[in-house]
Amino acid sequence: MPEIKIGNYLFTRLKQLGVSTVFSVPGDYELALLDLIGDSGVEFAGNPNELIAAYAADGYSRLKGVGAWVDTYGPGELSSYCGQAGQYTELVPVAHVVGYPGRDAMRGHMVMHHTLGTSEFDMFEKMASQISATTTVLLNPKTTAAEIDRCLTTMLQESRPVYIGVPVDMSHLTCDSSGLDKPIHGELPPNEPELEKGVVGDLRMLLEQKKSPIFIVDGNACRNYVTEECGMLAKLTGLLTFTTSMGRGGIDEELPNFGGVCSGLGSYKEVREAVEGSDAVFWIGNFPSDFNTGEFTEKVGVDVAVDFQRFFVKIGAKKFLLKMKYLLRALIKSLEDKPLARTSTAKVDWDPYPLANIEKSPKLTQDYLWAATSSSARPVPPPYGISASKLPTTASMFNQTVFGSIGYATGAIVGAAKAIKENKAYRRCILVTGEGSLQLTAQAFADMLKLELNPYRLSDCISRIILNSAATPWNAIHGKDAPYNKVGEWDYSLLAKTFGPAFPSKYWGQIDTCEGLEEVFADKEFNEGEMCRVLELKLGYLDAPANILALGPAIDGFNRKK
Amino acid sequence: MPEIKIGNYLFTRLKQLGVSTVFSVPGDYELALLDLIGDSGVEFAGNPNELIAAYAADGYSRLKGVGAWVDTYGPGELSSYCGQAGQYTELVPVAHVVGYPGRDAMRGHMVMHHTLGTSEFDMFEKMASQISATTTVLLNPKTTAAEIDRCLTTMLQESRPVYIGVPVDMSHLTCDSSGLDKPIHGELPPNEPELEKGVVGDLRMLLEQKKSPIFIVDGNACRNYVTEECGMLAKLTGLLTFTTSMGRGGIDEELPNFGGVCSGLGSYKEVREAVEGSDAVFWIGNFPSDFNTGEFTEKVGVDVAVDFQRFFVKIGAKKFLLKMKYLLRALIKSLEDKPLARTSTAKVDWDPYPLANIEKSPKLTQDYLWAATSSSARPVPPPYGISASKLPTTASMFNQTVFGSIGYATGAIVGAAKAIKENKAYRRCILVTGEGSLQLTAQAFADMLKLELNPYRLSDCISRIILNSAATPWNAIHGKDAPYNKVGEWDYSLLAKTFGPAFPSKYWGQIDTCEGLEEVFADKEFNEGEMCRVLELKLGYLDAPANILALGPAIDGFNRKK
Repeated sequence: MPEIKIGNYLFTRLKQLGVSTVFSVPGDYELALLDLIGDSGVEFAGNPNELIAAYAADGYSRLKGVGAWVDTYGPGELSSYCGQAGQYTELVPVAHVVGYPGRDAMRGHMVMHHTLGTSEFDMFEKMASQISATTTVLLNPKTTAAEIDRCLTTMLQESRPVYIGVPVDMSHLTCDSSGLDKPIHGELPPNEPELEKGVVGDLRMLLEQKKSPIFIVDGNACRNYVTEECGMLAKLTGLLTFTTSMGRGGIDEELPNFGGVCSGLGSYKEVREAVEGSDAVFWIGNFPSDFNTGEFTEKVGVDVAVDFQRFFVKIGAKKFLLKMKYLLRALIKSLEDKPLARTSTAKVDWDPYPLANIEKSPKLTQDYLWAATSSSARPVPPPYGISASKLPTTASMFNQTVFGSIGYATGAIVGAAKAIKENKAYRRCILVTGEGSLQLTAQAFADMLKLELNPYRLSDCISRIILNSAATPWNAIHGKDAPYNKVGEWDYSLLAKTFGPAFPSKYWGQIDTCEGLEEVFADKEFNEGEMCRVLELKLGYLDAPANILALGPAIDGFNRKK
Repeated sequence: MPEIKIGNYLFTRLKQLGVSTVFSVPGDYELALLDLIGDSGVEFAGNPNELIAAYAADGYSRLKGVGAWVDTYGPGELSSYCGQAGQYTELVPVAHVVGYPGRDAMRGHMVMHHTLGTSEFDMFEKMASQISATTTVLLNPKTTAAEIDRCLTTMLQESRPVYIGVPVDMSHLTCDSSGLDKPIHGELPPNEPELEKGVVGDLRMLLEQKKSPIFIVDGNACRNYVTEECGMLAKLTGLLTFTTSMGRGGIDEELPNFGGVCSGLGSYKEVREAVEGSDAVFWIGNFPSDFNTGEFTEKVGVDVAVDFQRFFVKIGAKKFLLKMKYLLRALIKSLEDKPLARTSTAKVDWDPYPLANIEKSPKLTQDYLWAATSSSARPVPPPYGISASKLPTTASMFNQTVFGSIGYATGAIVGAAKAIKENKAYRRCILVTGEGSLQLTAQAFADMLKLELNPYRLSDCISRIILNSAATPWNAIHGKDAPYNKVGEWDYSLLAKTFGPAFPSKYWGQIDTCEGLEEVFADKEFNEGEMCRVLELKLGYLDAPANILALGPAIDGFNRKK
């Protein structure tokens, strides 16, 4: 039986799946494991804290299809649970590898450091199981290879994080390596052919016979990797196609039949009318969460909806156990073989981004900012302001529409930029964050600098006119002038110099006029400079994107409803 | 029935227990609750992130006897679990208040933001229950007052954190306020008198008849608030009295019968001989964890040990259900009524801190640093280097000997300093941290500045001679020159300017000579300046405190033992 060190089996498997970099904060229970990373051709990237490591692994996975981070039992893993729960919610496949105490210490119920001091060792795995597709702690070299394969397969099939505990005395023991010849099978099994064929027929009928069928490309389309299929359907049918906050980046927004972003009361009038007036809504990857539906103000009846999900599709009230990926492919094939027999389809006779026509005022405003961003930059999170920006053809937008952890973006961009660098296909990577969010994970700048990722940063550093700034999304929802909505005043011009004095950086700020913003967007150094570029924007106190201002009271009202 | 808003019932109860400041990161599910803080006479202190809020509440509780922090359901609470687990392990009573989604949304299984997107709401309480003395989510105004009282009573009696979820629609509803007239009863019920009397007799007999009885004041003595009793016993008997890493600050180290810090192989020879040679070890608050026992190298036989714990005492193998606090008080009373009939007790004829005699070399070393710290400053964590410093009579040292979360100290000092400020009894508050630890929670500096806490900081900023620094404790344990043990290079002279440019601060550094350190310690501005004072020390690459160097291989060996 060919053998390999257990640590190397794990890292080799991850490498096979596309993980070339593992994020980490070292701790003594994981050091032996970390010794083996290089032997498997995987790079080690150390982070200032574990939450940032988890966010970075998330950003990395969104581009590479899989990510991983390693931390230590107890404090290390607990500090990153927020990142893992976000992966679980937003369907991001990532392996959380945790360095465990030695098996002898656990079996002997010794009081070890990093425990709760109770002689027990399984409480953290119990906690993690709530936010993992599956968990394991490797205790037996004989079953290790199979356990690792089981976890990584589940991670891919469910597109969710898994938790793998490696006791400190296990990583250098050996296990059967023969399985490494066969790749992990992450694909879902195919649909039942007869059932699939029948449903494709039903779907064709709807597309041909209904008056105004439309597509909505939603969050679960992106998170289940069917965006290519969505694009083909939009092109093949020419039908009106929309996206949602959570679905941004899932559809080419320069298509002539792209109609805009639908978000209930947060949508533009024309979008709302087209969506609510449709008699056949093909809702691909529907994710009916509060923030994704304009606080449940979306009005699409069950009778007109076709609900496409990872493991099933529902036409009206009828549910079929068909995986959407294969079903969509079968529908595409059918449309390619025999195009849709439709004489007319509705056209987009409105501007999906009316804000792009906004007039320039001297003072920089949120509305102007997001319109300007459409044409001059290619943005990433957060979900709100940027929902008013048009994304260029190749842009992707990464956020956490449902889990909504502030501070996520600043950590995630580290992994996203690292993945882009490894993929060697140039894409600009732009972090857009508010100052309240930035403060949670500001030290991620140390990673951007150290790893020489040189991202752009668009910080909407709000209302620095008054001594304390306002954390505007909260202010708009509840407690407009409340002291708890004030954010500490930092000097962002020093961020890059503090966190990475040895690396090149440049700061533009504070910009508080529309003209000033235009100048920066036209600056060659800002666009192409090989350094970490930080842009600090100052917006009016309590100025907020139009959609936040519209939804804020609805959110507060819903929250406080008896 | 007199009524009060539920949020005010909670904050009033906390205020009665001594909580004048609640730490927090605001989020929309908790904003309504935060509106009520001021009405109960409690101050709101916003933090840059939730982990820092939890650490600050921990530091606050260590001085005030109780602390609290408020964050939001999901991302907020999950980000602070590491802080809560540390409180659980280290027996710190703190209330973790979590703003929950509205009851209607939960009952209706809506897909809300900050959830896992699964229409379920109880998974985070399940997670938290592993690291809480008890948990509750307030769903019924009729039972709310009783639930809050139950949780806070458990928090005090078990001296551990509790978790209280408050749905966003509950905080402004009212509940019965009549209970507020009676204070929460946190005291443990008294011991069974006859049993206690018998055991006091047994203990007296050991103290009188054994050849060399000693006291060890350990971690659970501090954490269960019996240090006053320990001090009285040491004075009344004159017997040799020791402490441990975890027990630091629990006994007056200037007592003539104070023998030093015992930590197995990490102890000085004389200490080890005295402890291992004793035929009656009164081990008060024994906490036999790896780091507290020199990696289980402590040699005290069960037959000679008297093990004092919160809820029981064991004499040899015999266990008695007696709370140590009352038992120790009964023993003291007995000794006061009738002093010990002993003719001789051993004397401390060694220097408990031989490092204090260390010779001054030109280059600053770890050993010199800790010796110098004994006489010139009053230190706080971390546990290692500082174990070699003598603590002055009134000093307390706060750390996490068992849970051992790096980054804890920088957050905890925020709460400790706030509590000191509120107590209005001046104590110097010194943060001692390595740069690897500092980087996890560096933004806590924003709080120190904003809250004008002006603590001293002693940062042992290691080995900045080479481009990348070494995270020395890990290097000493495993992977001496490994890339994962390198810490990102920051510019610490900018820390205070970045995180709080509006507040006064001064930086001294980088100091890399013994003489330079002496100069700073003699500097009036450093000692008495009304500003945030940061001292950065540069120590040799791989230089580490003598006890870490001695224990490193033992820890690595134990970790990797088959």
